[in-house]
Amino acid sequence: MGNSKGADGAADHRPAVGRVAVVGTGLIGTSIALALRARGVEVLLSDPDAASVRLACDLGAGRVLDESAQTRPVDIAVIAAPPAVIPAVLRGAQDRGLAHVYTDVASVKASVLAEAERLGCDMATFVPGHPMGGREKHGPGAARADLFLGRSWALCPTGKAGAETVAAVAELARLCGADPLVLEAEAHDRAVALVSHAPHVASSAVAARLLSGDDTALTLAGQGVRDVTRVAGGDPAMWTEILTHNAVPVADVLHGMAADLAATADALHALARARDGAGDEVLEPVRDLLARGRSGQERLPGKHGGVKLPDYAVLPVVIPDEPGVLGRMFAVAADAGVNIEDVRIEHTPGLPLGVAQLYVLPAAVDPLARALSDDGWSVHAGA
Amino acid sequence: MGNSKGADGAADHRPAVGRVAVVGTGLIGTSIALALRARGVEVLLSDPDAASVRLACDLGAGRVLDESAQTRPVDIAVIAAPPAVIPAVLRGAQDRGLAHVYTDVASVKASVLAEAERLGCDMATFVPGHPMGGREKHGPGAARADLFLGRSWALCPTGKAGAETVAAVAELARLCGADPLVLEAEAHDRAVALVSHAPHVASSAVAARLLSGDDTALTLAGQGVRDVTRVAGGDPAMWTEILTHNAVPVADVLHGMAADLAATADALHALARARDGAGDEVLEPVRDLLARGRSGQERLPGKHGGVKLPDYAVLPVVIPDEPGVLGRMFAVAADAGVNIEDVRIEHTPGLPLGVAQLYVLPAAVDPLARALSDDGWSVHAGA
Repeated sequence: MGNSKGADGAADHRPAVGRVAVVGTGLIGTSIALALRARGVEVLLSDPDAASVRLACDLGAGRVLDESAQTRPVDIAVIAAPPAVIPAVLRGAQDRGLAHVYTDVASVKASVLAEAERLGCDMATFVPGHPMGGREKHGPGAARADLFLGRSWALCPTGKAGAETVAAVAELARLCGADPLVLEAEAHDRAVALVSHAPHVASSAVAARLLSGDDTALTLAGQGVRDVTRVAGGDPAMWTEILTHNAVPVADVLHGMAADLAATADALHALARARDGAGDEVLEPVRDLLARGRSGQERLPGKHGGVKLPDYAVLPVVIPDEPGVLGRMFAVAADAGVNIEDVRIEHTPGLPLGVAQLYVLPAAVDPLARALSDDGWSVHAGA
Repeated sequence: MGNSKGADGAADHRPAVGRVAVVGTGLIGTSIALALRARGVEVLLSDPDAASVRLACDLGAGRVLDESAQTRPVDIAVIAAPPAVIPAVLRGAQDRGLAHVYTDVASVKASVLAEAERLGCDMATFVPGHPMGGREKHGPGAARADLFLGRSWALCPTGKAGAETVAAVAELARLCGADPLVLEAEAHDRAVALVSHAPHVASSAVAARLLSGDDTALTLAGQGVRDVTRVAGGDPAMWTEILTHNAVPVADVLHGMAADLAATADALHALARARDGAGDEVLEPVRDLLARGRSGQERLPGKHGGVKLPDYAVLPVVIPDEPGVLGRMFAVAADAGVNIEDVRIEHTPGLPLGVAQLYVLPAAVDPLARALSDDGWSVHAGA
């Protein structure tokens, strides 16, 4: 059970996941519900906030869970509540016999597990889970059926749940388009501290500095600082709770980052003080951090959590800012038999022109450039 | 001359920029050359690396600068060399009378200016500049004519250059699609320390931690850490040089970040030690940093450096992965009179379907959703 294989079971013996209850219709719960509905699963929804359930239902995520009318347990109940209340919600659902199997979606696992044990939850039917998808937005209105597509979905069974039980939750993850990955709760928490929680705090630390700049300084901001600080736009209250539940692993990573930043700052100050007199070795901590940073960045798997996408070539095309222009451009591509895999449009405020970046397979660049040029488009090949 | 107005001159009296020499055909120099060529400017290219010049010429960035054949100075020479060599290259070009006006593209200004003065450069013809565009890739092969489109282009004239001279360089920036912005060299350096150099180091500090995780941990990485660490993929040698030239402003920002991260780590450790006994006030530094981070992030101007874009609404539409599908979809939008402002296509590895996120003005969502639904598309309004 040390890797994702353990959750697979035999390929010809997949557990049936026909009816699922989603308890908590926020972003994650509603996204799971939408994904399951798209695969034909019957989904029952509940949330302490009645408006949230109504919105989720209206979005096609399922229908309201009416426990008084339930005659038999659902296959799986997904507890999609904040980490602090998951153990109590789980215990209540188990006491009522809501489901055969239970899972949750908390982004921290060890503290939730410990509290669930303390509350006397039945650990034989509970498989803690954490789907690795999210957005800065929250609530059912931000939910998307494809939120977990190609993402990892961590499962942290305690050993008290049988293989069939774990396999059922793995199948639920797979129905949402995710790759189930079995690991220990403590290993999970250290991993997410490293790849999610501590990077979030670092993003906040960069963004917090921006408060000290004047408007002119901020006008010089480019795409780099926007990317670095994007996640800092997340909800402070929600993130405070997440960090609280994973305090030590996050703190350990943050101490390492703080030490690296302080050492770099000290080296730069030393360089400035000793200018002319300073030997090259003063800069060693700076060089070292930048080199380690590049090596670390290269360790990240491909864009979609482990799924390596083909390398697309990019063809920039100048486009006028008017209705129908993209349709005409794509029609030329279709006539040339070229599939456009992705497109990014660069806005050009104040200018009547924009640039569309067309992503295509490398072999399709030349035919597409020729077809568009012949049709009178301003194509910027070679970029 | 305290803002961009000062560089404008009278609207009906724009300086003629007909012939430009670009000295240094790396990413920035070649991108400037490509942008100028697209506006019909004659561009002459030089670089100590002959292969680099040849590639730039082949890309259509201009022709080789042959100084022995030059009978008159060009209008502007752009010194697009690394910061450390710019003053010497500038002095040499001025001694040869290469141009009427000179500018550079270094991302640090005060140290370059001081060294240029020390070398006896003619400051009356030199307008230091810094276009705010870049990529992780480098070299002429990565150049793009649209690299500066909609970006700010900082100009830091010393007061020794006349208004006409500054106006000529502002016109060059405008020809590249950028917005010229005049500010003091020291203010510029503090600003880029805040919005570019220190965020880069922070990104490296996050990425460097990833070296301590095992492969399973990295499999859990989502989009957040990818965004935070993207710029850490930049060239360590180039960035060491940049940081060296802006040492004190960068160090000051880094010390602030390090202190915030250390305080957050200490608070989380204190919480873990005192669990149950800890009052809520232990978490104050955590809450404070996350709140300041969100406020700072919100201060960043719209996507394109200072130009606030309208808030678009997003309409997700499920699309099959086949040629022509986007063309058909955009044709429906055009028939409905809706302009699609931007589009993002979510790849769905292993599935024959994808999701196109259509960005439109809020008022256009309902008409577009109706038109697409009527045409048989699977529209996911409300997401």
